[in-house]
Amino acid sequence: MKQSKKVRMGMVGGGKDAFIGAVHRMAANLDGNIELVCGAFSSDPAKSIFSGQSLYLPATRCYAEYTQMFAEEAKLPETERMQFVSIVTPNHLHFPIAKAALEAGFHVLSDKPATFTLQEALDLADVLKTSGQLYGLTHTYNGYPLIKQAKHLVATGALGKIKKVVVEYSQDWLANKDDEISKQAQWRVDPLRAGVSCCMGDIGVHAANLAEYVTGADISAMCADLNAIVDGRQLDDDGTVLLRFNNGARGILMSSQIAIGEENNLRLRVYGDAASIDWSQMEPNSLWLRSNTQSTQLIRTGVGDFCPAAQSAMRVPAGHPEGYLEAFANIYQNFAKQIRAFEQGLPCSNATFDVPGIDEAIRGMAFIENTVKFSQSAIKWHDFEISPSTVSGVAE
Amino acid sequence: MKQSKKVRMGMVGGGKDAFIGAVHRMAANLDGNIELVCGAFSSDPAKSIFSGQSLYLPATRCYAEYTQMFAEEAKLPETERMQFVSIVTPNHLHFPIAKAALEAGFHVLSDKPATFTLQEALDLADVLKTSGQLYGLTHTYNGYPLIKQAKHLVATGALGKIKKVVVEYSQDWLANKDDEISKQAQWRVDPLRAGVSCCMGDIGVHAANLAEYVTGADISAMCADLNAIVDGRQLDDDGTVLLRFNNGARGILMSSQIAIGEENNLRLRVYGDAASIDWSQMEPNSLWLRSNTQSTQLIRTGVGDFCPAAQSAMRVPAGHPEGYLEAFANIYQNFAKQIRAFEQGLPCSNATFDVPGIDEAIRGMAFIENTVKFSQSAIKWHDFEISPSTVSGVAE
Amino acid sequence: MKQSKKVRMGMVGGGKDAFIGAVHRMAANLDGNIELVCGAFSSDPAKSIFSGQSLYLPATRCYAEYTQMFAEEAKLPETERMQFVSIVTPNHLHFPIAKAALEAGFHVLSDKPATFTLQEALDLADVLKTSGQLYGLTHTYNGYPLIKQAKHLVATGALGKIKKVVVEYSQDWLANKDDEISKQAQWRVDPLRAGVSCCMGDIGVHAANLAEYVTGADISAMCADLNAIVDGRQLDDDGTVLLRFNNGARGILMSSQIAIGEENNLRLRVYGDAASIDWSQMEPNSLWLRSNTQSTQLIRTGVGDFCPAAQSAMRVPAGHPEGYLEAFANIYQNFAKQIRAFEQGLPCSNATFDVPGIDEAIRGMAFIENTVKFSQSAIKWHDFEISPSTVSGVAE
Amino acid sequence: MKQSKKVRMGMVGGGKDAFIGAVHRMAANLDGNIELVCGAFSSDPAKSIFSGQSLYLPATRCYAEYTQMFAEEAKLPETERMQFVSIVTPNHLHFPIAKAALEAGFHVLSDKPATFTLQEALDLADVLKTSGQLYGLTHTYNGYPLIKQAKHLVATGALGKIKKVVVEYSQDWLANKDDEISKQAQWRVDPLRAGVSCCMGDIGVHAANLAEYVTGADISAMCADLNAIVDGRQLDDDGTVLLRFNNGARGILMSSQIAIGEENNLRLRVYGDAASIDWSQMEPNSLWLRSNTQSTQLIRTGVGDFCPAAQSAMRVPAGHPEGYLEAFANIYQNFAKQIRAFEQGLPCSNATFDVPGIDEAIRGMAFIENTVKFSQSAIKWHDFEISPSTVSGVAE
Repeated sequence: MKQSKKVRMGMVGGGKDAFIGAVHRMAANLDGNIELVCGAFSSDPAKSIFSGQSLYLPATRCYAEYTQMFAEEAKLPETERMQFVSIVTPNHLHFPIAKAALEAGFHVLSDKPATFTLQEALDLADVLKTSGQLYGLTHTYNGYPLIKQAKHLVATGALGKIKKVVVEYSQDWLANKDDEISKQAQWRVDPLRAGVSCCMGDIGVHAANLAEYVTGADISAMCADLNAIVDGRQLDDDGTVLLRFNNGARGILMSSQIAIGEENNLRLRVYGDAASIDWSQMEPNSLWLRSNTQSTQLIRTGVGDFCPAAQSAMRVPAGHPEGYLEAFANIYQNFAKQIRAFEQGLPCSNATFDVPGIDEAIRGMAFIENTVKFSQSAIKWHDFEISPSTVSGVAE
Repeated sequence: MKQSKKVRMGMVGGGKDAFIGAVHRMAANLDGNIELVCGAFSSDPAKSIFSGQSLYLPATRCYAEYTQMFAEEAKLPETERMQFVSIVTPNHLHFPIAKAALEAGFHVLSDKPATFTLQEALDLADVLKTSGQLYGLTHTYNGYPLIKQAKHLVATGALGKIKKVVVEYSQDWLANKDDEISKQAQWRVDPLRAGVSCCMGDIGVHAANLAEYVTGADISAMCADLNAIVDGRQLDDDGTVLLRFNNGARGILMSSQIAIGEENNLRLRVYGDAASIDWSQMEPNSLWLRSNTQSTQLIRTGVGDFCPAAQSAMRVPAGHPEGYLEAFANIYQNFAKQIRAFEQGLPCSNATFDVPGIDEAIRGMAFIENTVKFSQSAIKWHDFEISPSTVSGVAE
Repeated sequence: MKQSKKVRMGMVGGGKDAFIGAVHRMAANLDGNIELVCGAFSSDPAKSIFSGQSLYLPATRCYAEYTQMFAEEAKLPETERMQFVSIVTPNHLHFPIAKAALEAGFHVLSDKPATFTLQEALDLADVLKTSGQLYGLTHTYNGYPLIKQAKHLVATGALGKIKKVVVEYSQDWLANKDDEISKQAQWRVDPLRAGVSCCMGDIGVHAANLAEYVTGADISAMCADLNAIVDGRQLDDDGTVLLRFNNGARGILMSSQIAIGEENNLRLRVYGDAASIDWSQMEPNSLWLRSNTQSTQLIRTGVGDFCPAAQSAMRVPAGHPEGYLEAFANIYQNFAKQIRAFEQGLPCSNATFDVPGIDEAIRGMAFIENTVKFSQSAIKWHDFEISPSTVSGVAE
Repeated sequence: MKQSKKVRMGMVGGGKDAFIGAVHRMAANLDGNIELVCGAFSSDPAKSIFSGQSLYLPATRCYAEYTQMFAEEAKLPETERMQFVSIVTPNHLHFPIAKAALEAGFHVLSDKPATFTLQEALDLADVLKTSGQLYGLTHTYNGYPLIKQAKHLVATGALGKIKKVVVEYSQDWLANKDDEISKQAQWRVDPLRAGVSCCMGDIGVHAANLAEYVTGADISAMCADLNAIVDGRQLDDDGTVLLRFNNGARGILMSSQIAIGEENNLRLRVYGDAASIDWSQMEPNSLWLRSNTQSTQLIRTGVGDFCPAAQSAMRVPAGHPEGYLEAFANIYQNFAKQIRAFEQGLPCSNATFDVPGIDEAIRGMAFIENTVKFSQSAIKWHDFEISPSTVSGVAE
């Protein structure tokens, strides 16, 4: 047996005090298959080195610039250099970094939203195609085992014909002006760094992705109403979008960052004509399957039979709660497997490895731009379009 | 001490097999202060007598026609004849019966929606004013003690400035064509008996009323999207309405009769800028009060201090669950007290006795007609108007 | 059709400020089949009349003494006099009142515990047999529809062979010395009025009854540990009893009146070798049916199929919560039906009408005396015996 | 800044198919501070190498015998050799491995129960003292942030004087004879590998530890009743233990491996005379704080203020559920910090680093032996003693 090695990861962003960078690293660490080998954690060389060293990296692989990192890493022997880069910066940097990485021959796993604008996402698709590399997008919530089982239940007809989808993603961390003090808040309410949307771009897009992932249907039309509830906000911090899906189903997407008392309330309900499912991220190991003629079934992680995708996303026996980091780790694990398949010349599509990719990137950016554009319209319904817009991003 | 007597009630509708009539009677019975003394339970004299006798009434006070009942009862001595009539028929009969009762000198407690059309509700207001009698509307869900406490919390500023309201009323009893077999279903899907709306008229109006009752604010604008999900339905069986309130708050009202697996899911969330409340009818003895800086408070019926309206709506100690019939009984109890005050010449407004009345009747009918009308418009937002319309009631 | 009449009830106890008397009356009122016609609400004639008049009774049927009431009522025509008496006094009076009522030819529906001592319960059985009348005991919690369904599931083998029973009844209303201020508390902590036990006599006996009712098995041995947690208490306010059942199952019964934060937490779990059930009185419309190989089933009142006993104990559609008063009313309704059967010469056993009776009275009193006696023993296990004891009732 | 290095871990046990070994590795991996550098994963050299290589270890550091591992590792440079060993074998091997490791100069982090017998735990204490090394015991459930907050609430008097403790740990994975097929089950029901107890040794001891950890009190007397519910079992698979604590509190400990439908139901309730807490492992991010005069508080991970121990045990914002692996990782993180302190000559007691240690090892083994011994006694109560016994371990 030839000694196998861990998949080697570099990181851009995620220095000291960055919340999401630490989350990505824990997700990458959990299963012991991925190794952080380098990073450009900050544009300040000293800070980047300090961050890297606290992560046990040698100073030589702590870079101040991602361009430098890609160049230097590319010079290393194939068995040493990083294989993929994890991008955990604010939104406006996602595209240039991803583009540079792909062009330098590295796979990319990016935080969402994929890019700053829909146009960038479309451009990224071209770059990706040319590069021949892999691209993954961390729509974390797809990583939960019971979400995979929910998708399976819909796909196998357990719900009958889908009639209605209700998806909600509510938080309260931007409920007041004072909440903008944190670093994470500052860039999200800033059009120059977040893009045309705050709420829809940060969390609404997760909800939209989850609805499409589970139902296997595409949003085809929307009626959007975005709000900037807190005085002085330039971007939306709340909104509701009525939906039509291409399978005929109706839907409602509610999202808010000012819903005080809501922690991280992502909930999906899908109603068919035979049964419905109900899942909440804050109790992710429970999936409710209901009909109007029989007792409700409470499907619990680890109890009973599951589809392979759900089964392989579980790590511990029933009753040992798995949570957000495990869901996140599932995205990383699947992407690491995808890279190994790529390197062995095996089939390695995102679909095969259940990793959100460039299609989700484009649809997500279109969703964000559409909600902002349609919200400003006096007309109720608009077709979902994948067409870069010139909306200003200022709500109302 | 002069021997007091129970308040005497007559009933129109509610014969054998009628669901809601039995509910009204249990609500009236519970506290032992109201006595059923007569009824026109069916337009078939034999059936009406059969129903009345099974309710222990003498045959002489079981009437085949409500007009006959009002005439005959009016001839009885003041201390024997019925004091108020409970109207539990299908919607299209509410107005003529209420009008006749008021004109014959009887108080009216009516099931909702108040009338068949908004115009009738406006006419009813005139009749009521002329009659000098009392009028109550059984918006049952206002009767729950924790709803009264929720109203109190909003009114006393515990939530800060109200920013967002999410109210949902979902059921599944009309999820399929086959579900129309029951008597209760048949008239609700029939425009000739239900009016312009099925879902909004039957349950959406409860949700709208609850939101206005608790927040103390009025809906001022709406964006409506009603659906007839089940093939062949002439009226809506599902819908979503985006809301603006006259205090600046945004809102979402979701209602459905086809949301399979939903039993009777009425849930209200009100988000202020300081705290939020969350209440679900299916667990009515729990009220959640949440902020983003402190632990959540779970307010439980009977534990701690309550406003007088909530306190007087509780019957048993904490942990002894009170439910739907008790909430319903609270409407009846308050109406009975209102009648006693009326008879003693004391102040007896609906507001004083916390009984929904003609104002709620009019706003409810306006809500129903508005949702249907606005749903048919291509324009997103419309002002809430109290203006009788000519909409056909056929969804989409 | 001959006009039927409501079943006529008298009441002993339950005057102003008495909690449980009002509960019994609401339970009797709810369905409109029972009429309160007389009462000896207080031993003070003026108070009894005052109480009775506030309940709309004529002064002539408000008695100061139960003996007088039974004598006077017996003189009334058969179609007017009370048919059964509801006994809602403190424990020490249950037996003499029940005895007198039975001997005067009235049926008895008694609050629990049935008597002051086991000997009295045994004596009562003799009186009852001689009288030929009916006797019911308000073990309220048996009245919940899902408890009846739980009993059905056990009886029909859905759980397999029963292995373990865990029943808990915890409250906190006597958690501190200060809590003894209320009238209801005063007599319950007083050996002269409550008997040998406070906690086991007041609520532990409900838990024991519930376990036996649902499993259909009898407690056959016990290891008891009662505590008087609050300083100065003469009777137990907390305790645990390990159980053996005559079907081989093990059990645990926990009960407390000092478990601060517990409202009225009666919960029953029954584990078979194939499945288990779990029911909590504070969410009484949910019954969990679990196995270790399949998804959990959540059985909800009104959803799916039920055994006839459960079905007839439900009043409103799914999702309209039914609670404590409805459960209590089910005992009253069944007892009223039993009386009608009695009067028509039909089979009218307690078992037929699902009404707890003299057998439960005796077993309950034996349970109470056994727990006190066994708790004082240094030996771990004792057989459950139906043998009047001379224990002092002072815990520890 | 001198480049710091990860803490280096070896492992004994935990080869392919071993459940708990994988869990320990994920717990060690999560935060990126610990590196697995060697292991004796199996006594079969080929298997050990295979397991190690699949974990990316060089063949040279995959050992077939732990004695060999300790010897070889000790020869490596100080900066390369393992610093601590994680012991994840069946129970009977814990002591000899821990002893050998300590004597070879390595710290030990052991799965529980610490040893095969109490005598071994006492011997281990001597070895530990002589060695001067560190010893940790993975009582995982102590690692949950809200358990640390619960301990803090008790210690700071938020509950008042502690009156009652109810702790339960129920599972169903050994509910039937067929369940013994798995490797994990086989050794747990075997007295030669598990010791004198199955249920109490595997999970009851967790419950006892949790109760003592949170209350800060010691169990001082017990009344035990263990059962072998499944036919043919030589060891207990179920049991209840009544408790007295040295602060005067009463307690109940219930544990079962045959409670069908229970996944991994570890729940702790502590009742004081002012308030109570309630925590369930299956919803670990919620801690209920209840009184009998005010609304319940629901303390949620990440919302509000926490004691330092709880705060440092949280990784992600409120509403992003953390679970079992994160709790386990907290034990590993704290032990890694303890090792660093040790190496820097700083104070490094287990108490300082909140790591369960040799005291918990001894008390745990005493608990296990006591429950088995006392269960066989006809006498109800026995003092908790730390005195090695000669019980056979066969229940009943």
